[in-house]
Amino acid sequence: MNYPNVINDLIECFKKFSGIGEKTAERLALSTLEMDDEVLQIFSEALKSVKKKIKRCKRCNYLTDEELCTICKDDTFRDKTILCVVEEPKIVTLFEKMGGYHGLYHVLDGLISPLDGINPEDIQIASLIERIKKENIREVILAVKPSVEGETTTLYISKLLEGMDVVVSKIAHGVPIGIDMEYIDSLTLEMALEDRKSVT
Amino acid sequence: MNYPNVINDLIECFKKFSGIGEKTAERLALSTLEMDDEVLQIFSEALKSVKKKIKRCKRCNYLTDEELCTICKDDTFRDKTILCVVEEPKIVTLFEKMGGYHGLYHVLDGLISPLDGINPEDIQIASLIERIKKENIREVILAVKPSVEGETTTLYISKLLEGMDVVVSKIAHGVPIGIDMEYIDSLTLEMALEDRKSVT
Repeated sequence: MNYPNVINDLIECFKKFSGIGEKTAERLALSTLEMDDEVLQIFSEALKSVKKKIKRCKRCNYLTDEELCTICKDDTFRDKTILCVVEEPKIVTLFEKMGGYHGLYHVLDGLISPLDGINPEDIQIASLIERIKKENIREVILAVKPSVEGETTTLYISKLLEGMDVVVSKIAHGVPIGIDMEYIDSLTLEMALEDRKSVT
Repeated sequence: MNYPNVINDLIECFKKFSGIGEKTAERLALSTLEMDDEVLQIFSEALKSVKKKIKRCKRCNYLTDEELCTICKDDTFRDKTILCVVEEPKIVTLFEKMGGYHGLYHVLDGLISPLDGINPEDIQIASLIERIKKENIREVILAVKPSVEGETTTLYISKLLEGMDVVVSKIAHGVPIGIDMEYIDSLTLEMALEDRKSVT
């Protein structure tokens, strides 16, 4: 494009993000010209240092810029005998935003998917089992998505935990709140029916 | 959010762009962790320098990192007696991508809109008139959007050019190519009907 080089650089960089196409990248690149200098400075610094600064928590594999993440270091009210097992870091944030969970987490960094060449040893399952033993975990909540990979991972982990003194549960799947029933797919409806609860 | 600071900084910066909300900003910030170091380096540098590097072309007001933009400096095949008048820099790019226009441009940086407090002296109209006189312009093509502001601006400029030895035209408005006729609004249809061309 016939923009000056620095604008073309920005367009190319924005295009590297999935979900950002040519048009959006152009719009975003041009709008940097209207941004505060301070924001651009912070943005620039953060991009330069993000990969150097961010590590994984030694204990739970969540994102951190120290040895342990803020959640593992939190000494106030967390129940450190419960682990919620999730696929990726942003699900931890989802749970934290919800606010109703006060245990710890374990980030698997993927789900078992033999077709994609992802085997149990490629994700953080060994470290999970080790933690459960070492930290006297009382309950493991499997909170992965209800897909073939999710179910495979849930099944695999629960098999490994058989015979150990730990309660294994998985989050409920069913009809989400605030949605029109007619838009629910049949698989979800089937799960919702199967897991029905008595109301009397 | 309970992310490390550098991730929160990135989320806040992405949220400054119009059209990027909380969820998207979070996704984009996290995906920087998977990007090439080189891309992040270029991105960081470009953000830091973009506002310092980018100026407006002394002649046409398009974006440039030099005195004159690449289009004004282009000495190959441009017809320097035709000016296409546009609202903002990215419309220049749109025309250049199309490839069928070989004249010069003039970027107004806005349209006349008294309701929003934008008067003729707030946009690049004076410099346009000066150029037309000084550069012996033969034709001025007004290519602004068909809105109240666009029509006001078109009318205002064409009034100013009355009596000067220059052809003033405006781009055609009508039904765009490749669209289902049923989705056309009545104003567009009215313009398309009014500007109908003989086919025989």
